Amino acid sequence: MPNNQDSPASPGAAQTLMASEIAEQPAALEATLAALLPLRSRVAQVAAGRRRLLLVARGSSDNAAIYGRYLAELHAGMAASLAAPSVATLYDARIDLSDTVAICVSQSGSTAEIVDTLEWSKRCGAATIAITNAEASPLAEAADLALITRAGVERAVPATKTYTTQVAALAVTVDALAAAQGRAGTLDAEFARIGEQAAAMLETPAEVLDAMAGALAEVDEVLTSGRGLAFGTTLETALKLEETCLRPVRGLSYADLKHGPIAIVDHELLTVLVAGPSGPTLPGLTELAGTVREKHSMVLGIGGDDRFRAACDLAVPGPDASEMLAPLTLVIPAQLTVERLAHKLGLDPDAPRGLRKVTQTD
Amino acid sequence: MPNNQDSPASPGAAQTLMASEIAEQPAALEATLAALLPLRSRVAQVAAGRRRLLLVARGSSDNAAIYGRYLAELHAGMAASLAAPSVATLYDARIDLSDTVAICVSQSGSTAEIVDTLEWSKRCGAATIAITNAEASPLAEAADLALITRAGVERAVPATKTYTTQVAALAVTVDALAAAQGRAGTLDAEFARIGEQAAAMLETPAEVLDAMAGALAEVDEVLTSGRGLAFGTTLETALKLEETCLRPVRGLSYADLKHGPIAIVDHELLTVLVAGPSGPTLPGLTELAGTVREKHSMVLGIGGDDRFRAACDLAVPGPDASEMLAPLTLVIPAQLTVERLAHKLGLDPDAPRGLRKVTQTD
Repeated sequence: MPNNQDSPASPGAAQTLMASEIAEQPAALEATLAALLPLRSRVAQVAAGRRRLLLVARGSSDNAAIYGRYLAELHAGMAASLAAPSVATLYDARIDLSDTVAICVSQSGSTAEIVDTLEWSKRCGAATIAITNAEASPLAEAADLALITRAGVERAVPATKTYTTQVAALAVTVDALAAAQGRAGTLDAEFARIGEQAAAMLETPAEVLDAMAGALAEVDEVLTSGRGLAFGTTLETALKLEETCLRPVRGLSYADLKHGPIAIVDHELLTVLVAGPSGPTLPGLTELAGTVREKHSMVLGIGGDDRFRAACDLAVPGPDASEMLAPLTLVIPAQLTVERLAHKLGLDPDAPRGLRKVTQTD
Repeated sequence: MPNNQDSPASPGAAQTLMASEIAEQPAALEATLAALLPLRSRVAQVAAGRRRLLLVARGSSDNAAIYGRYLAELHAGMAASLAAPSVATLYDARIDLSDTVAICVSQSGSTAEIVDTLEWSKRCGAATIAITNAEASPLAEAADLALITRAGVERAVPATKTYTTQVAALAVTVDALAAAQGRAGTLDAEFARIGEQAAAMLETPAEVLDAMAGALAEVDEVLTSGRGLAFGTTLETALKLEETCLRPVRGLSYADLKHGPIAIVDHELLTVLVAGPSGPTLPGLTELAGTVREKHSMVLGIGGDDRFRAACDLAVPGPDASEMLAPLTLVIPAQLTVERLAHKLGLDPDAPRGLRKVTQTD
């Protein structure tokens, strides 16, 4: 896989790879959905007789998997959990997974830890699905079914189009499981609108993005918060800010935030709230915006409704989408902000210090 | 429940409540084990025919639950996962949990979110176990079986003895499940030694604790890392540092650390590594100590073996324990360090700003 550290784009050049790849997302999402929606019957076959999901991933893929976990429980009514890979790779535990579908997510399909955990889950009896951007990868070859995202080659180190297409692949997978469980109504009608939703996100007003990037450039501490279906987007926003702009950023559920870390919120810390367009988590997030502003922390909002955005210091709308599918495109304003922030800080968004495109862990 | 914010101990007073409660842990652990070990047959009855664990908790209790998850998979061979409470409390999802034991952990037994999630898991078909320090609490009353920790009243806001006794209760619970699964060998012989292991941790040399607290007092950014059975202790160390001393602290698995956040490690950031005494995660953590020091980040070590501690800038030994039961006492040096750090920063360890003893979330 490409490792862009050897050929960094110069900061300040006309357009970074990251900016190009962000802009490719409407097409990448449409291509991915066109390729994967017809495979829903294959997903149902692989999952036949299984009642549990185990999601296996790291990094940005893990943030996509967290969305998959919520969607599985809320849309398909299947209990889902995130694997602790060390249980497989380091401890080689013997667990009965004969009731489980393991869904392993890796853009490169080459991270040994994820491939090894897939092989381990097979030995424990699980059916396996790979979600990867690399058709000829060890992960795709090892799985019972490989769902190949159509992001094209991603050359910037920060994952953008490979992340959103993973989120889309997870939505398709869970929608297939929901149908197989006899749950009413697939998400079909909305899948047809994802490309336009992504395109609309690219039209987020530049002046607000610049103002948000400017505010982020002036603080040393950043925290992101969200909950439920948008929680994965919240964590991905934190990871993008951190790995691209080299500052410590945490993503926290607003419930976890109230259980301790709220103590550190003050004027030196900026809070980014990420919200879906509707749903039961929105009132709590709107209230949190007020609580955090009372502590003199500046609040940037992404998504939500008018009332949520009015409660923030600066905010941009998310997609005109359902709460369930908003996470396919809700991260785009965050990606755009991070790319601008890198420029403001004199950093190269395409090749942050110390990171490689394929990370090897054990 | 007591809320110590109304009667803070004055910083610099002879002994803080937090220090007293840290010192009570050998007795609290012994009392808890004496009360709960005879209940293992009741645990096995409640869990009969169930093959999954779902752990429900927030804050320090969540860090205890993460230990429970690893122990369940490694010692009992039962797949275990952490609940996303919003799936229950906000979305009220319908999931089949007829194969599941839900273990709900809350020191007060009064956090509505945890009680509500227990009730929800019952409606979904789960058997339920409460682990709480309050016998007459809503959580204890709602569960099929209540395991009451014997920490006594905890008056300092930061959880210390209620945390370690929760960890002990989880060890007892999982040991009962392991026996019920026909797994060879309980942890009985070692349970008898936990009190002395805790007492030994209280004897950690004051000069090293002072040096670690001094190093922490001089930095603005702290990160903790660990993995596997000691990962819950790693997260609890991060939470204690953060909520007591009002600085942002993240706890990360070392695999997650390598997937992005490693980019922000530099001389301005201090790294605390938390390791069990043995086991397959130890070589990786020892190697990480070297990697992080090469980036000019100071490394404090808690636990591990001689080689691990030699790889750190400053380190204290953990308990003379197995990897499986070390987490019952491994956090004690971290608690002692945090209490000292609060004094160095002129803060009151007993009543950090903005926190209450019982947190209500929805």
